[in-house]
Amino acid sequence: MKYTALIMAGGRGERFWPRSRKNLPKQFLSFTDSGKTMIQLTVERILPLVDIGDVYVATNRDYKSLVKEQLPGIPDANILCEPVGRNTAPCIGLGAMHISAKYDDAIMMVLASDHLIKDTDRFRSVVESACEVASQGNNLVTIGIKPNYPETGYGYIKFLPDEKNEDAYRVDRFVEKPEIEVAREYLKSGDYLWNSGMFVWKVSTVLEAFKGFLPSTYKGLLDIKASIGKDEEDKVLEEVFPTLESISVDYGIMEKAESIYTIPGDFGWDDVGSWLAVSRIKSCDEDNNIVNGNAVVIDTKDCIIEASDKLIAAVGLKDIIVVDTEDATLICDKGSTADIKKVLAKLRDGKKDKYL
Amino acid sequence: MKYTALIMAGGRGERFWPRSRKNLPKQFLSFTDSGKTMIQLTVERILPLVDIGDVYVATNRDYKSLVKEQLPGIPDANILCEPVGRNTAPCIGLGAMHISAKYDDAIMMVLASDHLIKDTDRFRSVVESACEVASQGNNLVTIGIKPNYPETGYGYIKFLPDEKNEDAYRVDRFVEKPEIEVAREYLKSGDYLWNSGMFVWKVSTVLEAFKGFLPSTYKGLLDIKASIGKDEEDKVLEEVFPTLESISVDYGIMEKAESIYTIPGDFGWDDVGSWLAVSRIKSCDEDNNIVNGNAVVIDTKDCIIEASDKLIAAVGLKDIIVVDTEDATLICDKGSTADIKKVLAKLRDGKKDKYL
Repeated sequence: MKYTALIMAGGRGERFWPRSRKNLPKQFLSFTDSGKTMIQLTVERILPLVDIGDVYVATNRDYKSLVKEQLPGIPDANILCEPVGRNTAPCIGLGAMHISAKYDDAIMMVLASDHLIKDTDRFRSVVESACEVASQGNNLVTIGIKPNYPETGYGYIKFLPDEKNEDAYRVDRFVEKPEIEVAREYLKSGDYLWNSGMFVWKVSTVLEAFKGFLPSTYKGLLDIKASIGKDEEDKVLEEVFPTLESISVDYGIMEKAESIYTIPGDFGWDDVGSWLAVSRIKSCDEDNNIVNGNAVVIDTKDCIIEASDKLIAAVGLKDIIVVDTEDATLICDKGSTADIKKVLAKLRDGKKDKYL
Repeated sequence: MKYTALIMAGGRGERFWPRSRKNLPKQFLSFTDSGKTMIQLTVERILPLVDIGDVYVATNRDYKSLVKEQLPGIPDANILCEPVGRNTAPCIGLGAMHISAKYDDAIMMVLASDHLIKDTDRFRSVVESACEVASQGNNLVTIGIKPNYPETGYGYIKFLPDEKNEDAYRVDRFVEKPEIEVAREYLKSGDYLWNSGMFVWKVSTVLEAFKGFLPSTYKGLLDIKASIGKDEEDKVLEEVFPTLESISVDYGIMEKAESIYTIPGDFGWDDVGSWLAVSRIKSCDEDNNIVNGNAVVIDTKDCIIEASDKLIAAVGLKDIIVVDTEDATLICDKGSTADIKKVLAKLRDGKKDKYL
């Protein structure tokens, strides 16, 4: 069966402001020494498994030209522009309908465009196992991540260690972001994985699930499918997509469906959730600083300094993040990265939209 | 007797980098809400006492155009350009010779160009008292500052509280920058003042002191005086000045002379020695931050943020100084301002002189 992939690239990634902007979100930025952007690395990772003509990118209209620019090999028709954001279920449904319009059935991988993976070979091996399990019956496979610390910012997947199918385990249930004590128990038990939001299934299986669990969404998606490749395609998408229920695929389908499997991934996954991730990705100097660009650093420890052309002089700093761009400079304590969104809120209120 | 003033404006002020530069030192910058520069405020303060035509500015060649630009009322001939820096004694001697070439004798005030004074009326009243005392006999008057904390970065003047002349006290001795315990004793005793480096005397008195204590300097200065107003003036200055001994007026004259008086100044003096001074000068917000320019500040306390056009976003900071300029941004912990000079050293070593 044909392997296809849907890459979800509609996110706005405010947490990487000021490097990320409304018009240039995280997935289109580079955080590694390779210089390649997150979405370029995502596609590169799966190309040994999937023809580039079978890679679909779901994004919003504003980012279409960025996708074309960064991924010139992907056919125009495979760049699916959501007229509005409607969470992951409609996005995945849209991708599934496009694939089912092209192939009777196919394996469909659903991947995030803004995660980093260190061990690409291991990742591909896990994805291949997932494709194997997904090709059987009506299995929906989610790729879990073996936790190595009690993270409270992710949802978890509880699997049944005794119900194994190839490399996959049957999923008992999905659980919400836990409190720290609960997260510690999850880590200790060994039966919990982080929910990475990467899935593998047959198009026929996931569409059957939409039909069963999200019937009105399914009906709307069928209308969209009927228009694919026709003159009215854009018009129908524009009319129907905004009417679809905004719901995540986890909540709308995965938590309700039978035959859910997960494969524990151990391929050095990082969701690059904030500037703090840069410390995990890039190499540090002897004082545990990450320093890039035009910078002079004196008596400074555990800092991230992302300079650009302008000279940044850091003196006596500890645990500070400095990110310089052409029109804005962020200076943020490492403990306050969650408050970067408050800067954006202030900029919106203060009629300084040009910095967003 | 005519009142005249010599303003010393040759300093390079590295501690205010990146706002201060090799070509734009501290005395030519504004630190107050008035928008006026330090040297402009210095001249403005004494104009009720001294005709603008009797104000002399000693500086180095590189800053002549800055002086002309910022102080257009001062006659060209009164801008004295030291070919090289030779500490305060030759600088003051040069000024004294110029004044004595113009007037038989005159009261000469010697003032720093990079100190701030909050209570201008009180300052002028102290200076007038100093002029009064200086006009008698051979008195050399230094203006002391009543200490309000045990500063270890200044020299001190010990005065004799029982030997009073008008508002002035006879000076017992000058003492070097003390250790903190000693500084605490000075503060407690009440007989010590900070040495501000501001003096008042008759030109005849100070030149007599040069003749007595620095005879070879005096001789050189006489050669310079002989050339004033003649074609060879620049050439003689260029040849003679560099041969003069580099020595401070405190060490070369004040510590040796008789009849030294001091007047305790209580006019809100600040030598603006580092970026920390900005907290004393400018008004703070409710979180004790000084914020100027294009900035957004979130959960930030006790910081100094001197933004310019580029947006500065400060998040979760405490005790941090941020100074943005067109080509360089300083981010410095308040406890590390003394290390700013290490940045300049690195820039010199790294062939980045354009930022100096």
